Amino acid sequence: MAKPKAPRRPRAETPKGFRDYFGAELRARQRMLAQIGEVYHAYGFEPLETSAVETLDALGKYLPDVDRPNAGVFAWQEEGDWLALRYDLTAPLARVAAQYRNDLPSPYRRFAMGPVWRNEKPGPGRFRQFYQCDADTVGAASVAADAEICAMLVDVFAVLGLGDACLVRVNNRKVLNGVMEAAGILDPTDPDRFAEERGIVLRAIDKLDRLGEDGVRALLGAGRKDESGDFTKGAGLGQAQADIVLAFTNARRDSGAATAAALRDLVKGSKIGLEGVDELEEIASLLDAQGYGPERIVIDPSVVRGLGYYTGPVYEAELTFEILDEKGRKRQFGSVAGGGRYDDLVKRFTGQAVPATGVSIGVDRLLAALAAKGQAGAAEPGPVVVTVMDRARMADYFAMVGELRNNGIRAEAYLGNPKNFGNQLKYADKRGSPIAIIEGADEAARGVVQIKDLLLGAQIAEQASHEEWKAQPAQREVKRADLVAAVREILAVQKAGGQG
Amino acid sequence: MAKPKAPRRPRAETPKGFRDYFGAELRARQRMLAQIGEVYHAYGFEPLETSAVETLDALGKYLPDVDRPNAGVFAWQEEGDWLALRYDLTAPLARVAAQYRNDLPSPYRRFAMGPVWRNEKPGPGRFRQFYQCDADTVGAASVAADAEICAMLVDVFAVLGLGDACLVRVNNRKVLNGVMEAAGILDPTDPDRFAEERGIVLRAIDKLDRLGEDGVRALLGAGRKDESGDFTKGAGLGQAQADIVLAFTNARRDSGAATAAALRDLVKGSKIGLEGVDELEEIASLLDAQGYGPERIVIDPSVVRGLGYYTGPVYEAELTFEILDEKGRKRQFGSVAGGGRYDDLVKRFTGQAVPATGVSIGVDRLLAALAAKGQAGAAEPGPVVVTVMDRARMADYFAMVGELRNNGIRAEAYLGNPKNFGNQLKYADKRGSPIAIIEGADEAARGVVQIKDLLLGAQIAEQASHEEWKAQPAQREVKRADLVAAVREILAVQKAGGQG
Repeated sequence: MAKPKAPRRPRAETPKGFRDYFGAELRARQRMLAQIGEVYHAYGFEPLETSAVETLDALGKYLPDVDRPNAGVFAWQEEGDWLALRYDLTAPLARVAAQYRNDLPSPYRRFAMGPVWRNEKPGPGRFRQFYQCDADTVGAASVAADAEICAMLVDVFAVLGLGDACLVRVNNRKVLNGVMEAAGILDPTDPDRFAEERGIVLRAIDKLDRLGEDGVRALLGAGRKDESGDFTKGAGLGQAQADIVLAFTNARRDSGAATAAALRDLVKGSKIGLEGVDELEEIASLLDAQGYGPERIVIDPSVVRGLGYYTGPVYEAELTFEILDEKGRKRQFGSVAGGGRYDDLVKRFTGQAVPATGVSIGVDRLLAALAAKGQAGAAEPGPVVVTVMDRARMADYFAMVGELRNNGIRAEAYLGNPKNFGNQLKYADKRGSPIAIIEGADEAARGVVQIKDLLLGAQIAEQASHEEWKAQPAQREVKRADLVAAVREILAVQKAGGQG
Repeated sequence: MAKPKAPRRPRAETPKGFRDYFGAELRARQRMLAQIGEVYHAYGFEPLETSAVETLDALGKYLPDVDRPNAGVFAWQEEGDWLALRYDLTAPLARVAAQYRNDLPSPYRRFAMGPVWRNEKPGPGRFRQFYQCDADTVGAASVAADAEICAMLVDVFAVLGLGDACLVRVNNRKVLNGVMEAAGILDPTDPDRFAEERGIVLRAIDKLDRLGEDGVRALLGAGRKDESGDFTKGAGLGQAQADIVLAFTNARRDSGAATAAALRDLVKGSKIGLEGVDELEEIASLLDAQGYGPERIVIDPSVVRGLGYYTGPVYEAELTFEILDEKGRKRQFGSVAGGGRYDDLVKRFTGQAVPATGVSIGVDRLLAALAAKGQAGAAEPGPVVVTVMDRARMADYFAMVGELRNNGIRAEAYLGNPKNFGNQLKYADKRGSPIAIIEGADEAARGVVQIKDLLLGAQIAEQASHEEWKAQPAQREVKRADLVAAVREILAVQKAGGQG
């Protein structure tokens, strides 16, 4: 006879590629987002929180010609309609700008921060849910809107304490289009021709950092075989054509004016190309006038941004301080934010082109940068823990934590099983508590409490001599009435000593 | 010949039952959540953010309402596994407590705030994505943990300015079980017997507010036909049995001690019932000792909370101020938070029972309460708008907003098409801007700017006589160098006058 099966237990795990965020890490992120939000807000942007779930239709993530979702999104069918989790904050903004176009001010300036979801293969440090933090101006054709966002990025980094380490690099897709014209792969009278070649060129330039000039040249030409032997088809450009494209990516000079002159030469007679150079000059001059000089914001033609939807200025913010990579080699921290002008996203819904520009900050990258620079904020101490020596006197212990909290001191009474006192101290240790309070029957009778400085206690345990221990005892007895004053004093000493 | 189809345009809409949150409403929510979070944090709780997506397996069968099957979640299949959006913050906490049980401190005290998703029929004010804000202590068997959460709720309302309007009502499922024993529908030697009847009784009591005593009596007996004619099956209790249950729901007396005595009488010889009364008395005495008297926290046997998983104390926070309902009748604002003790949620994963208790605040309900009491915070003014009279002098306008921002004043330059000046003022109006700055060619030549007080301008337009208008002009000219000082002065006057 078969034994009755034990009830199957579910596995206590997040789905593959998802993770949880705890205490200190979460508070550091909230603090950072609040700081960024204040800058965005000061610039006049208003917060927006769209629903996490959108129709697949609104996201525009149907595969071409089939009513099946793009594999990159999490999607499901609900009463016949396909719904999906948003994969960025820009597609929902385009939907909002179209949906409320009669009610929103124009330009509509919004910032948004929140999780997005990608149905992609997870990897080390690559998760399927992560935060983005965007600011966009919808309805502004002037490149002053682009210049403003570049300046705002510099201000964001300054507020975060990374002001000396940031560099915003600006380019313009129109200049690239002018270069494509010069290279013979964009025909203004037949804009669809060579579209595939231009896509390959765009993605090739975007890989310049990683592949170097030789790798890009291969991709501009016949194609490239990578280390694994996989072959990526190239754009099929001849050497003279490739030279023009590579000259473009190398056109950065010492000054913005010199770079602009080099670009003007490259795009030759292309109308769109010259328009792009004019825009870059306008952006540079606006920023210069505000004191954002070339040490913070530069014209750099090697920046193209991979996304197909950009139509004008594109920009990327990088942090220039050095870290060690996984192999111990020094390298620059690199890109933490990027964006640009996209004039066609709202048009999908309304048929009318709406000029828009905006930036997205990679929240996890930026948090990692803050941590690497020691700017993530000091780890906060845990709560003062009032231990429980006598379960019947719980009300006394609650009175103590109440007094401490009323004086602005984070505190809690131990709520686990109080039988084993060692467990209570272990708990306080695990919580990173600065202080434990002890009041047994003897102390209660005498009207005193013991205050244990847990940070000092840990130091003494590690390093102090017996003399030091006597001179600086980690535990002291104070009158019950002096509890708050004594705790406050110890916390102040801990803070001053950098122990907290 | 068929005409080529015009490209189909997606509809710019959220999915049914979802919504977006804008500017002021979003900031009010963030402010409220930050205030609540500070109270939770001061009590020693640590923040936790779990992934929005869980395996359906981990979410398990614990739907909030046993009346409903698992259809209540948004779920989809991914490489063979079922994933789902979390429908509350408690199920993910149970998963986390099991997953990290070797690393987390015990008790584990966490707070969480974030959206949850319910695949339910949307209705007026009922959305499929909404915020919850929870605090739970996992691993504390003592009802001191329950008492603490009740006290913390009162503190939360005090911080939000609702301290005089809140009442926390506490009950205990063990007492209810004792009453069930006394009514003959719980047999301690055969706990599975009458389970269905007990479920009906529980849900019936939970509807006391809505159905009144007669309605509940019908559900305890043969059943109840509602106004639409739908019939709900009853528990089949006889009159004497129903009397016992109803006496329980009516057992609230003027003092906690009197209520406890009445309950003790009702549960008669039931061991579990008496244990429950002891726990209620312990909670009441702990809270009394801390000054949370019966005007803030009461023992109220009519509170049972619908969820099946509660095993001990249950509590509910309501706001007692009156509002007008949709039909213009006065009624109390009602419940905004609830919770209780659940000892079996972690056991699903590990096989070991882990005592836990916690509360969930209904964020949208509480925000509505704050708005009804005028405590949601004053609407913030929009940014100072620097208008664009001369596109070529954009750098000057940017310099002005830069100066204003550096002095802590929210400001932006108009980035739409500047051709129509009326549109610029309309924009400032739509943004709720307090001030517009105007600097045309003439002003620039003379080194001055015009400062327009938009709030005063609106007032004058509405009500002022010509004399008043002359005495208190809404527009004034100041030297360019005095811009910041003049703007600051006007903002101060607006604030003092309650115009902001």
